[in-house]
Amino acid sequence: MSFSKGFRCLGYFRNLHYRQGVVNHRFNSSYALAYEVFGEPTEVLKKVPIQTERHVKGNHVMIKYLASPINPADINTIQGVYPVKPTSFPVIGGNEGVAEVIQVGPNVKNIKLGDKVIPSGSTTGTWTTHRVLTEKDLIVLDKNIDTMFAAQIAVNPCTAYRMMQDFVKLKEGDSIIQNGGNSAVGIYVIQLAKFWNIRSINVIRDRPDLEQTKEYLKSLGADYVLTEEEIRKRELMDKIFSDISKPKLALNCVGGQCATDCVRHLDDDGTMVTYGGMSKKPVVIPTGSFIFKNHKYVGYWQTRWNMMNFNSSQRHKMLEELTELSANKKLITPKVIQVSLDEYKEAIENMQKGFSNAKYVFKFD
Amino acid sequence: MSFSKGFRCLGYFRNLHYRQGVVNHRFNSSYALAYEVFGEPTEVLKKVPIQTERHVKGNHVMIKYLASPINPADINTIQGVYPVKPTSFPVIGGNEGVAEVIQVGPNVKNIKLGDKVIPSGSTTGTWTTHRVLTEKDLIVLDKNIDTMFAAQIAVNPCTAYRMMQDFVKLKEGDSIIQNGGNSAVGIYVIQLAKFWNIRSINVIRDRPDLEQTKEYLKSLGADYVLTEEEIRKRELMDKIFSDISKPKLALNCVGGQCATDCVRHLDDDGTMVTYGGMSKKPVVIPTGSFIFKNHKYVGYWQTRWNMMNFNSSQRHKMLEELTELSANKKLITPKVIQVSLDEYKEAIENMQKGFSNAKYVFKFD
Repeated sequence: MSFSKGFRCLGYFRNLHYRQGVVNHRFNSSYALAYEVFGEPTEVLKKVPIQTERHVKGNHVMIKYLASPINPADINTIQGVYPVKPTSFPVIGGNEGVAEVIQVGPNVKNIKLGDKVIPSGSTTGTWTTHRVLTEKDLIVLDKNIDTMFAAQIAVNPCTAYRMMQDFVKLKEGDSIIQNGGNSAVGIYVIQLAKFWNIRSINVIRDRPDLEQTKEYLKSLGADYVLTEEEIRKRELMDKIFSDISKPKLALNCVGGQCATDCVRHLDDDGTMVTYGGMSKKPVVIPTGSFIFKNHKYVGYWQTRWNMMNFNSSQRHKMLEELTELSANKKLITPKVIQVSLDEYKEAIENMQKGFSNAKYVFKFD
Repeated sequence: MSFSKGFRCLGYFRNLHYRQGVVNHRFNSSYALAYEVFGEPTEVLKKVPIQTERHVKGNHVMIKYLASPINPADINTIQGVYPVKPTSFPVIGGNEGVAEVIQVGPNVKNIKLGDKVIPSGSTTGTWTTHRVLTEKDLIVLDKNIDTMFAAQIAVNPCTAYRMMQDFVKLKEGDSIIQNGGNSAVGIYVIQLAKFWNIRSINVIRDRPDLEQTKEYLKSLGADYVLTEEEIRKRELMDKIFSDISKPKLALNCVGGQCATDCVRHLDDDGTMVTYGGMSKKPVVIPTGSFIFKNHKYVGYWQTRWNMMNFNSSQRHKMLEELTELSANKKLITPKVIQVSLDEYKEAIENMQKGFSNAKYVFKFD
């Protein structure tokens, strides 16, 4: 099997029911990052030419990608350790991204040339220059949306938004605590908390550029930025809780000791939402938290939410709100490092080294 | 301060707003197990004479206790490690028990002589021969209720009932898993599951009388009784789950490794309810359980439920159902060892040694 055979990738598309239609010609500049076995992304990913139909038919739409981020879940998917696995190979990598509509089939009703779109489902295959999908596979965004924000809107801002909306009824002046405060989601949480007038306590790891990181997060609206060690200091925390209420909501993407330390500050009847496990350690919860403090511990996975709210009004409302916040500069994207498809190895290697809160994004010409 | 001064205990009653009224005489045979400092129960508990008013007034009711169990929470309360602490001393021990009404004040409307009653609130002070409460402090039970069942109805059967009703909508044929399968609550869970046609997987510690314990629990209706080691055996568990569905509900009173092992068998979207921590180890939950399996982890505490459902129709309905099940021999109490107030030291020592699933109950003459 060779990746130079574009029809292979096409075969994969067909398996995922994207109904590519009849293949006639190859686009001169259609390429994708694909893999045919699970493994380390830098080893198994290949840049390969792909084929798309020349003229889209029916309710099909041809899109040209503008930007696609590299998310940690994309890496895990390629490694074969993510719970959602492709069922046949080769597979094109990537799970989100923004594209421009460059051709519409005769039966397409609500999408037009030049629209900016994202996939409506949780679909792999966004590290590609072109793609053909049906109308219902796409969500149209505001055409003035910032491209780098649009590329990332489907996962991280939505994760932050839903975790703060769906588990605890927060009112103005309430507090939340989160670890991974300078993760991509963490940065959106800080900004949404600021916008909704919620006090945020943000926990980060100690690091060489600690003070700059604290200042950066505070400039985004963080009320408190504390290291994992600092939230174990009783006197310091008592002082904070003489100024603000105990958090009703804790957001955890770290696990291990740091998650347990966050639990200790959670208010009675509070909820911890786990959406990641960066320490690769489990969540350890004292029995008394359950029984006497009446804490609840739940998980959040944007992929599941999207599947269950595929094309819901709730989803459109959220995307509109987030887009407006971005347009009004209330929601800044994490630092972005733009790379071309050719630079994938270096980008993934740098990303796996950690600490940086910059997001690598494939930018297409 | 001496315990022989009955008014001290009375002072405590007054602090708890039981409005004892004017003290005239002492009952000849009124005694209670009380303590004036936190500590090991066998050291700090004393049997002391207590005083009660001669004629109850207004809406007061004098009750004579028939039977009061010794629960683990009672021990922890005396040790001072339970979250609900008495605010003044001396304190009479015990948290539940059944009594008979022996005198009613002139304004009492719904309680009459000879009624069998339990306290409506979560009130300490049931290890006593007599007590005066107001009408609203008492719940009247069916007069034919078995005394040993009535003595224990307020905590363990209600805990089992609510945990199976309030967190997951179970339908006939569904499965649950619980550890501490031969604990007092565990035994009620087994029987309620049988009655409601729910499959139960019951986890117990390995022990010298393993086979007899398994047989005993199966005789109560347990579908599976497995040791903590057995639920780690993949082949065995696969076989079970080829016969029954994966549990939607897990009940945990152990914590530590055993709780994590139960989590592994919990169905997607399932809930684990923690109501105890007998291993004294925390609950350790893999990150993937939250994110990809969408598990929920909550706690249950009968004391809180009672406070929030003090005199609710829901509570009366539950007590009636449980009483009827007991009357129809669908709900057998755990083995009971009846002791007198004088035998408290030996009873508590034996109880703290563990393994036995017998419940020590003070029986009054």
